[in-house]
Parts: sequence; structure tokens; C-alpha cells
Amino acid sequence: MQISDNFDSGNIRVIEASDPSNIQLEIKHDNQSDFYQWFHFKLQTDPAENGERPEHVMHIINAGDAAYVEGWEDYQAVASYDRDHWFRVPTTYDGKTLTFTLAPEYDSVYFAYFSPYSYERHQDLVHSAQMSPDCQLQVLGQTLDGRDMSLLKIGQEGEGKKTIWLTARQHPGETMAEWFIEGFIDRLLDEDDGVARALLNKAVFYIVPNMNPDGSVRGHLRTNAVGANLNREWLEPSMERSPEVFLVREKMFETGIDMFLDIHGDEALPVNFLAGCEGVVAYDERHKALEDKFKEILLAITPEFQDDRGYEKDEPGKANPTVGTNWVGNQFKCLAYTVEMPFKDNDLLPDATVGWSDTRSSLLGRDFLTGVYHMVDELR
Amino acid sequence: MQISDNFDSGNIRVIEASDPSNIQLEIKHDNQSDFYQWFHFKLQTDPAENGERPEHVMHIINAGDAAYVEGWEDYQAVASYDRDHWFRVPTTYDGKTLTFTLAPEYDSVYFAYFSPYSYERHQDLVHSAQMSPDCQLQVLGQTLDGRDMSLLKIGQEGEGKKTIWLTARQHPGETMAEWFIEGFIDRLLDEDDGVARALLNKAVFYIVPNMNPDGSVRGHLRTNAVGANLNREWLEPSMERSPEVFLVREKMFETGIDMFLDIHGDEALPVNFLAGCEGVVAYDERHKALEDKFKEILLAITPEFQDDRGYEKDEPGKANPTVGTNWVGNQFKCLAYTVEMPFKDNDLLPDATVGWSDTRSSLLGRDFLTGVYHMVDELR
Amino acid sequence: MQISDNFDSGNIRVIEASDPSNIQLEIKHDNQSDFYQWFHFKLQTDPAENGERPEHVMHIINAGDAAYVEGWEDYQAVASYDRDHWFRVPTTYDGKTLTFTLAPEYDSVYFAYFSPYSYERHQDLVHSAQMSPDCQLQVLGQTLDGRDMSLLKIGQEGEGKKTIWLTARQHPGETMAEWFIEGFIDRLLDEDDGVARALLNKAVFYIVPNMNPDGSVRGHLRTNAVGANLNREWLEPSMERSPEVFLVREKMFETGIDMFLDIHGDEALPVNFLAGCEGVVAYDERHKALEDKFKEILLAITPEFQDDRGYEKDEPGKANPTVGTNWVGNQFKCLAYTVEMPFKDNDLLPDATVGWSDTRSSLLGRDFLTGVYHMVDELR
Amino acid sequence: MQISDNFDSGNIRVIEASDPSNIQLEIKHDNQSDFYQWFHFKLQTDPAENGERPEHVMHIINAGDAAYVEGWEDYQAVASYDRDHWFRVPTTYDGKTLTFTLAPEYDSVYFAYFSPYSYERHQDLVHSAQMSPDCQLQVLGQTLDGRDMSLLKIGQEGEGKKTIWLTARQHPGETMAEWFIEGFIDRLLDEDDGVARALLNKAVFYIVPNMNPDGSVRGHLRTNAVGANLNREWLEPSMERSPEVFLVREKMFETGIDMFLDIHGDEALPVNFLAGCEGVVAYDERHKALEDKFKEILLAITPEFQDDRGYEKDEPGKANPTVGTNWVGNQFKCLAYTVEMPFKDNDLLPDATVGWSDTRSSLLGRDFLTGVYHMVDELR
Ligand SMILES: [Ca+2]
Ligand SMILES: [Ca+2]
Ligand SMILES: [Ca+2]
Ligand SMILES: [Ca+2]
Repeated sequence: MQISDNFDSGNIRVIEASDPSNIQLEIKHDNQSDFYQWFHFKLQTDPAENGERPEHVMHIINAGDAAYVEGWEDYQAVASYDRDHWFRVPTTYDGKTLTFTLAPEYDSVYFAYFSPYSYERHQDLVHSAQMSPDCQLQVLGQTLDGRDMSLLKIGQEGEGKKTIWLTARQHPGETMAEWFIEGFIDRLLDEDDGVARALLNKAVFYIVPNMNPDGSVRGHLRTNAVGANLNREWLEPSMERSPEVFLVREKMFETGIDMFLDIHGDEALPVNFLAGCEGVVAYDERHKALEDKFKEILLAITPEFQDDRGYEKDEPGKANPTVGTNWVGNQFKCLAYTVEMPFKDNDLLPDATVGWSDTRSSLLGRDFLTGVYHMVDELR
Repeated sequence: MQISDNFDSGNIRVIEASDPSNIQLEIKHDNQSDFYQWFHFKLQTDPAENGERPEHVMHIINAGDAAYVEGWEDYQAVASYDRDHWFRVPTTYDGKTLTFTLAPEYDSVYFAYFSPYSYERHQDLVHSAQMSPDCQLQVLGQTLDGRDMSLLKIGQEGEGKKTIWLTARQHPGETMAEWFIEGFIDRLLDEDDGVARALLNKAVFYIVPNMNPDGSVRGHLRTNAVGANLNREWLEPSMERSPEVFLVREKMFETGIDMFLDIHGDEALPVNFLAGCEGVVAYDERHKALEDKFKEILLAITPEFQDDRGYEKDEPGKANPTVGTNWVGNQFKCLAYTVEMPFKDNDLLPDATVGWSDTRSSLLGRDFLTGVYHMVDELR
Repeated sequence: MQISDNFDSGNIRVIEASDPSNIQLEIKHDNQSDFYQWFHFKLQTDPAENGERPEHVMHIINAGDAAYVEGWEDYQAVASYDRDHWFRVPTTYDGKTLTFTLAPEYDSVYFAYFSPYSYERHQDLVHSAQMSPDCQLQVLGQTLDGRDMSLLKIGQEGEGKKTIWLTARQHPGETMAEWFIEGFIDRLLDEDDGVARALLNKAVFYIVPNMNPDGSVRGHLRTNAVGANLNREWLEPSMERSPEVFLVREKMFETGIDMFLDIHGDEALPVNFLAGCEGVVAYDERHKALEDKFKEILLAITPEFQDDRGYEKDEPGKANPTVGTNWVGNQFKCLAYTVEMPFKDNDLLPDATVGWSDTRSSLLGRDFLTGVYHMVDELR
Repeated sequence: MQISDNFDSGNIRVIEASDPSNIQLEIKHDNQSDFYQWFHFKLQTDPAENGERPEHVMHIINAGDAAYVEGWEDYQAVASYDRDHWFRVPTTYDGKTLTFTLAPEYDSVYFAYFSPYSYERHQDLVHSAQMSPDCQLQVLGQTLDGRDMSLLKIGQEGEGKKTIWLTARQHPGETMAEWFIEGFIDRLLDEDDGVARALLNKAVFYIVPNMNPDGSVRGHLRTNAVGANLNREWLEPSMERSPEVFLVREKMFETGIDMFLDIHGDEALPVNFLAGCEGVVAYDERHKALEDKFKEILLAITPEFQDDRGYEKDEPGKANPTVGTNWVGNQFKCLAYTVEMPFKDNDLLPDATVGWSDTRSSLLGRDFLTGVYHMVDELR
């Protein structure tokens, strides 16, 4: 039996892996940070002479001190034999240790917190996108590890056009965010899709599919190469600690913003939801009307969305100004939403086999384009 | 130069085809009917020694007596070299003759009134659909030419579930109707799509992708093998003249109906629109409320739909009861709509290259699923 | 239960189909001919209330008088639920009746003598091929039913280049012949394939993927629209009775021929083999040397080929001169082979699930390109 | 303008990149080694206001001291906009500096020594392969960087079966070797392919698609993580310096070997060729007969192979015993060949657009399966 994590976004520490029925593992901290929760590793089994493979029981023994322990409640880990199809495996949490179990059907199996989205796929995404006549790939600068901060500009500027920004994966372990973006971009670049064509007649999109490539490759949950939680850096980012935010903010100042979506995953809640900027100083009735309209259309068009469960609303003026959505909503006085998807399942439409998944995230991204279409005329 | 039409849905009569600059053609009537407008033929060019191909000018000299002459105004014929990608070619109409022109890039080219949808593809569609666990392929009986009347039942019956019917291609030359159905079915059978899954939790679908396979194969515009306009047969269909409607009606009586969409193409109007059953006796406020809600959601979610242009509304009680939508709307007192797509382009979102197309029809079918989802809780 | 055959290449006559355990069927004769053996029909089951489907037992009661009764020995019929994947079903032959049996997994199932190759697919094949810069689609004229005799010319003429002809489906029920051609063409047009590129530097190919489109669509085994066995028409073809051969022969006179392959299926032998023109007057040592070299390379490169079993060799000068391969081999004094594939399985490499199949036929076509490459320098 | 190499197999050092017409670059040495020649980097352009992109001139100023300077003669670098299609760009070498030039059509472009093959793709390759019933994925141990040494065992052991080994990418910059393996495996696992099925009836394959994953990810030309040239380690490998070879050799002792192919690229020669083990002590007539037969079949079946140009033959007994092919050929007294493909083009079948390419390498791998089939009965 061999367990390895030396690949894109791999993260595990083997404590003891001699007995398949009792494999002891730990998740590594993000570099220069206490956060940890993302795991991703490969298990190579030792099949018996007769080809049978025993049940493997994996204990993550430091789960109880992870960043969001409520994330382990009712959570099922994902696994894959072919790195394409990821399925859920039986998982329990006793307040201290996360335990999941599998009698593998093939000799090699990957486990992860959620379907990974590799830096190779990220590069494929932005470079195939640039082949579209409506799309330009820009590089805003470099991360601390020397990776590109890639921005897709989709659509042509023009009189009266709206400016719409999307960012994703500030928290690198929230890979569903980039799956969402992939679906959103695929549809936006589909020259036959009426929603996409109408939107590109009325708006220009600026999309950062991965705000945190260093953290992504390193297998971090929440921070960049030096342990900065990027979604707490928007008030005073610096090239030293948070160039990812600094560079994006500079570009935002240049373009202005009429609508902003920042795509995330939430460890705890088993639903999709939005979190707004109701606590920022600039928030007003117009903000609220736009928010209500956007939520109304999403509720109307997809059962994957709901508005009953979510974060507690901020008191007026009490928003944390270092958060991206708050900073943008306040600075540009525009509709600004954090989109949250589950690591678990969507309880309103549960799927025992895959739970909330890469494909469902992409389809939600696709459906969000419809929502944006519904809003575009009223953004300014 | 050779012109042929002996293939699925082929329809042309060659009057004179010796001079590429003056090709004289006629469209054949539907069998036992005066209707004609659908054309579909293949032109084989004679390239010059140097490989160059002259401009070919095709005159349809009986266009002026076709079923819907307003359909030729601002209409552009479609052509294809590979039978997959269909593009528009320059077309004029002088009140009598429809003329279109192409200097072909390859030696063989197909022309048609709209992207064809063959009986082979139809059989592939219903048989690949039946492989889905949610789908059953039923045969209601045989047409007059001995083809199957195929029905897809999608979803499992259950307490409180709604019954939703879709039919398409009563008028066989309106091939966009089956492209629409293909998009609708593809999404409905997508196990990852939340809209589809939620709908199948709440409804059972009965879908007839092609109401008129005989007319389709024969290259008819509007009627079945014996010249019956099926959409005027719903009051008193017979196995002798309109078994297609007779058999479907029998099944409808068996299942009941909570919502009905009958998919068509309109020769004249360059937009997508709905036509309801406001003129039937049973039409009431509830009908109207459902209609308004459905149109509202479609307007909200896709620029391909509009409600400004369409057919004149029927006076109360003055609906033609032989029309499918009227008959269903009256009989089952349910939301019943004819969906009309253009043969031309959607003027609200014109595409000079392909006009309204097979792909756009499929995408509209896909988007209509969202519309149905929005309605499903209120249908009964 | 419903059985239908009104579709491309459909062929069955229902004698009695009320009891699934005893379905009585007959194969229809080719038009104006006594030949019959090809069958192709669709069975719609009546599932029980509980969804179970009984075993269906189909008896072809006129099998004992079919064209090649030795073809029924050890033969297994093919079936498909999705019209893409065809599998073998248990089949017996008692000297009079062919009986096959299936408890269907889905409600609708097609049965056939071999995987069908439709006229729609044929048109897709030749029209997608013409998009390649190396390929020209020509039409030699029309069949008696008014279909195109399509010829693909692949490669550019040039000093010293060889001329290689392939024809397929003179006998329309031998669909494996067009599957073979599809594989051959796919590889020949692959711009990355070295064998293809080298061949196109040295030869021009003339390929008739379907010599008998009328018989194919009509569901014939062996003849064209008026009952002519095309492979007995090469000495004196006529536009009245065998325009398919007449037109191809005219073109052959125009191009000359250095190598000829005529692709067939054989009802009886469960192997792939070649049949040459050893009995023609012009046959000489050079002929024989070319034949031996070609067989040697095929033996060397694929286990799907063998040379132990085959037709009895013709005595010198005793060949039937009306057969395509004999006529071409004699007329052009060139390597000329009939390629025969089984309807059954390849006994040297049996596959219980699919037997000899569409895919294996295409792969053999692909491998034959290697064989042609090995020969090309010595053909003249 | 920005140039980056922080991605899988990236390798470049920017000396000066302010003026597009004079970009100064260096290739980095392999870690703990003097070897260098592999380069792989991304260039982000600064389009002008009008969208035009200037010609970019890239000088690799340390090319003259690279490992194989004859590799730069007549060499053309490859570039890609979408990371899928790689094309050649104009390149010159003056004995000191390698210069290539491109006016990019899109804003971001990758350049490389040859089409890269990433570790992500490698993992996809071996894990999708393991889903085949004929294939087992084994891990022999770990590299010095902690990556898996993955081995595919294809086929079931059995009486009289031959044992055939393939290894690739001992030299990690020779990415064509893994493209070759991908084609070889794809065909070997194709259940419809007769050659594959016949081979799996007669042999068991052990394939190491990437002998040097550390060097591959690090962007090395020739060595592993600690600078060991693995193809000089076969006599006395160690877990400290060359665990890749050590682990593979252990497994080879366990299985024995009847045929061995070690897949490489050659920097200098613009042809495909084989290099044998004629200089090893155990080499004898039987060895030679097997070699001749193998080369003969390859010559017969593909123009991509030739035997006129290649390495100088070793004198009897003078082979370098540390080379994989020599060690295996001597140890197991079996047919053992190094397969060499060009970095440049195949001069016998030049393709100005792509040169020798990823796709051509895969097709050659596919064709080599035919060669192995021809040999399998005589290997022992
Ligand atoms: Ca988050
Ligand atoms: Ca209509
Ligand atoms: Ca035959
Ligand atoms: Ca090498």
C-alpha cells in the first residue's frame, strides 16, 4: 500500500499506512497559516493473490482542528479511479477524526475534499478561451510563486455597455468555484447561445478563473503562498503579501464595475446561496432592489438555488471591508455577491452518488448566465 | 451538373439544369395536397478544368404559388457541404420566383428550406433516449406508410405528479421543431442537471418528437401521406386519414394532460413566439394566468423569445377546434401552447451566417425546460 | 408487440406476431429476383405490468430457401437497442427455419443480418470526406431509382503515380463492405498518418463506397432496383439494367487501374480472405507475384486475415468474366482482389459478444491501407 | 510582455525581455547536472492599441553550450496558442544562439522544444488505462521527489505467453516517447482491434510510460531530480541516485523479458530509427535474426521508419553496459531496441507545419503494435 500527494493540489501526511483497516493520516497546514481542510491524495492498494482488495479505512486524525469543523458533519469524501468521475464514499466524523472507507474496485484510487481542478486544466481553460474572437487573455502580473494572474476579457467595449466582473477561487480549496466558471465561460463563448449573444451586445465581462493559483497548486485550503487569506486583503492589498488582490483591484479601478460575482464554496451549508454586501456604507435601496431581483430570477429558474439558508446578514455599516464582495460593492456601488456552493450535497436535490459535484457546479455556472442576462439592463 | 432529391425529405423537380447561371426548379406538392414550400436537394457541380466553380443561380419558379408566399420575403435559403453545418445563401423573391445563388466551395452541396432532420436521426434520437433509466420508448401504432408513431415517456408516475405533453412536426417541413425537441430531451435526460431532476420529481413527460414521419420522409411541407393537415384533425381524427393524431389523442385520454406544448415553425414571422388557446370555450382566468406566467419567465430568461409579434388572438369561443393546441387546451383545461420558431432569422438577435438554425432551435428547447420548471408547481 | 421494417434497408414480412414465444417471419425477396437473405426489422415489445419483458423467439420460416443456406450454419443474428452498438443473439438453424431469441432489456430493439449502414450515413461519409483538401466528390450518374453514383477521388494526379480503385457493396446486404471503406477512408484522409501521406505521394485513389445504393435502401441482399446482380454485369453492363457498373466502368477506362479491391461479405466462411483473378486470360506470373506479396504482408500484419480458407481457385482461363474482379484484372492486367469478410465471426479470433462487427470491419479497412502501402511501388 | 515558466516542465531564464524584437533567454541546467536543451515557456504579448502584435524575436543565448548542439541544426521550435495544437516557427542557429520568431495571432503563446506531455496527462493516461479489464496499474515505488513509479501490466499471464517490456522518457525532455506510448496503449486496449487481441492472447505487456517523472515535471532534458542520467544507471542503479531504474530492474528480474523497447527522442537525426544491443556479450545470431525481422516488418508497414541512418553500431563486446537496452538485451538475451524519434522532422516525409509531432508519435506507437504482433511467435 502506498499513499502519495506529490502532484497538483496534493495534500496529505501519512502517519501510519501499514494496515488497510487502519490508515492514519493528517492534513497539512497551508504554508505560513493555521488553516487546513483540503486533502487530496492517491492510494495504491496491494491486491491479494486472488485479486481481491480489502476495505481501506482512512482516518484523518487532525480533522477536529481543521478550519471549519462543521464542514465535516454529514460530509462524504470524494474518490475517483480515472480522475474524471468522482463519487462519494461513506464518511463519518466523531468530533475529532474524519473516517472514510472504500474497498477499491481498481488498484489505484484518488481521494479529495472535492473534485480537484488542476493548474494544467486552468491553463487549458484560459488558452482555449482566448481562441474565441470575443475573448482576450490578459496577464495582470505574477503571484509570489511566479505564476500568472490570468484575466479573460470577454466582449467588446462600447457605448453604454455594462462591466461585469467574476472572480473565483480566492480560497484555492474551493475548486467548485472554477468548475462553475468553466460552465459560465463555455456558455458565454457559445456563438449559438442567444443569452450569451445578447449579453455580449450589452456587457463586457472580466473573469479571473483562479484568483489563487499558488494556493491551488500547493494544495492549500484558504491562503496564498505566504499564508494570506486573499478574501481579507481587499482594503489594503500589497504586492508583497497579496499581489493577487492588488493586481485585480488595479484593473477594477481601470474598468469600473457594474456587477460583481465572487465564486466560493462553503464548508458547512449543504445548499447554494448568495451573500451580499448589505453591511457596507454605500449599500442603499437600489442595491437591495438589484439583489432581490437577482435572487428572484435564480429561484425561478433553478432548484439548485435557494435563499432560505445562508450567512447571517451584516448589520448596516458593519460589513468586513476587507472582503472582496464588500469592498467591490462599496467602492463601485454595484450589485456584488459572493456565490457559495456546498462541499457536501445540495440538500434540496440530493444525489447520493456524487453529491454536489464538478458537473453540477458547471451547470450552475451556465444557469447563472441566464440570471445575469435578466439583470443586465438595470445594472446602471 | 446534376440535381437530385432521392433521399430522406428530398423535394425538387428539375425543369432545366444545363446552365449554372439559370437553373429552373419547381417544388413538388405534398401528396394529395396543394401545399408546397419545403425544398431539399443536392447539386453536383461541374468544376472547370482549373477547378473553379461558377456561380450557380437557382430559380424556384413556382415559389409564387407556394403555401405561404409571405414566407419568401426576407428569407435566405440554407446550404451545406458536409450535411452538418448549414449556412444561409443570398436569396431574393420577386413575387413569383425565389432565386438563390452560390459559387460552391466544394463540388457537392445540399440546399434546403431549413436544416433537415432525417428519419434516421429521429430513430437514433428515440433509441438512444430509451437507454436512459428515466425513459421509455413506446409505439402508439403505425402511420399510413407503416412507420412507427413513437412516444417517449420520461419520468416515473407518482402521487401528485403533473403530466406534460410535447408534440412536434405535425407539419413535417418544420424541422426546427424536432431540433427543439432534441435539445429539450437532451437536457431532460441529463442526470446532473438540477432543472431536469427537479422536474422529473414533479412531472411525467410524454413527448412525440415527430408527429408526421411519413410527411417528413416524403419531403412534405404540411401534410401526411394522404394529404391530411394533421393540425386540422384533432376534433375528429380517424385511423384512415389521420392515424397520427388519432393514436396520440387516445394516449392523451389515457394519461390526461396538465401542460401541452406543440412545436412548430412559422414561415412568415422572423421571431419566436407562442400561440395559445384563448379562443376555446373552456378558456378562463386560470388559463390566462398560466399563460402570462409562462410568457413572463421566457421573456426573463432568453432574448430569443418575445411576445410583441405573433398571430392575431382568437375571439372568445372562436378558436378553430381542429387545431391541436385548441383541442388539448379545451379538452384538458390546461395550459396549451403552440411554440413557433422562424424559418428566417430571429430579427431580435440576427445572425447573418446561419439565421435561425438547428443549433439555436435545440438551445431554445433546452431553455424551455427552465420555463416548464418555473410552471410545474402551478399547473393543476 | 409490433414489428416494422419501413426504414432504410428494412426487410421483413410478418406472418404471425401475436405470441412473443412464437413469432413467425419471412424475408422478402430482392425486387425482381429470387435472392433473399438480408433482414432488418424493429421489434417493439409489450412489457408486462411489472416492467418485465418476456423472451421473444423469432422464426424466419423461409430461411431454408435463402440464397446461401450455408450462411445460416453457426450464424448468430445481431441486435441493437441504440442503433449504434450491435451484439449477437442466440441463433439456431434447423435446415429450414432460422430462430433467434432475446429477452430485451429495453422496449424497442432492432435485429439485422449484420450492422446496417444507412444511406444517410453514406451521404455523411462522402460529404464529410469532400471537405478534405485531398478529396473530390464526383457523381458518375444516376441509378435506376435516381440515386447518385458517388465516387471519391483522393489524391492529386502526377507523373508516375499509381491508380488504385476500391469498390464496395455491389451486393448491398454486405454492409461490412462500407464499414471497411469508412475505416480505409478515415485513415487515408488523416493528415498526420504517415502511411496515408506516403500513399498520396505515390498514388491516386478512386473509391466507390456504395456500388448499389438502390439495393441498399430497399433492403436487398444481392441485387439492384431491377434485380440485377451487379457482380455479374461487368462484361456487358447497360444503362437500362446495370447503370451502376456501366458508369463505373466508363470512369475506369478513363483513369486506367494499377490495383483494384472490391469489398464484399461472404455468407458462409467465418474468416477474412481474398479471391483473385487467377482464372482470367491475362493472368500471368507478375499477377501472381503481386498477389503473393500482398497476401504475405496482410498475414504479417493482422491476425484478422488468413489465406488457408477461401473460394476454390479458378482454372486458368475459366474465370467468370462478368465478375468485377475478373473483368478488372483482365482488362487492366493489374492486381485485382475481391476482399471477403464474414457475416459470422472470424473463427481465428472469435468474439462471442459481437462476432465480426462494424468496428472490426473498419479497423480491417484501416489495416489494409498498410497493405496497399507495402505494394504501391511495385504495382506497375 | 511577460515570460513565465512556473508550470509543469517549464524551463527558461529571462535575461532581457523589454523589447519584443530582441528577447534574450537562457535554458536552465538540469538540477545537479550540466545537461540542458529542453525549454518550455509562455510569452504574454503586449498588443498595440490597434490590437496588432509585433514580431517577437527570441534568442536563446546559451544554446551553443547545450547538450547536443547538432540538435539545433535545421531545428524549428514549436509553439501553441491553445496548448493542444503545436506548430513549428521559423528558427535559426548561428553556432551560438538559437533564434526563433513569431508575430503571435493571440495574446498568449507557449513555446517548447517539443510538444510537452504533462504529469497531469500522465496520471490521466495510467488511470484511465486501469479501467480496462486487461490492465492493472502498479506502483513500483517512489522517485526521489516522492512521485510514483507507475507500471501498467496489460494482459493476463498464462502458459507460454511472452513477456514484453516498454519503457519511455528515461530522458524526460524526450516527450515524444510518452506520446508514442499513449498511441501504443490506446491500441493495445482497444477491444475491437484484432492485432491487440491476438497479442494479448500471446503476451503480457509491462509498460512504464514515464521512467523519469521528476525530471519531467522539473523541465529537465536528460536527468532525474539529482542529475542522474538514468540511461547510464542500468548496471548498478541505487535507491539513492536512481531509484527509477532500480525499481524497474527489480520488477524485470521478477517477470523476465522476451522483448524490450525503450522509447526515446534523438536531438540530431531527422528520422525515426532503432538502436540495438549488438555490442553486448550475449548478442548472437538469434538476436540478429530477431532484429532483422523486426526492422524488415517496420520498413514494410510504415514510411515513418527507416534503417539507413542511425547511430554507429557498437563493436562486438564494446557496448556501454550501463545503457538500458544493452543491459536488458544482455541480461535477458532478448530482442532489445532503443526506439529513436526526431525532435525535428522526419526528412523522409516532411511536414512543414508541424514537423515530427505529438500525433505522429502516437500513430507510430500504434503502428509499432503491428510490428510487435509480427514478432511475437518467435521471441522465445
Ligand atoms: Ca470561501
Ligand atoms: Ca406550423
Ligand atoms: Ca458478395
Ligand atoms: Ca535519448
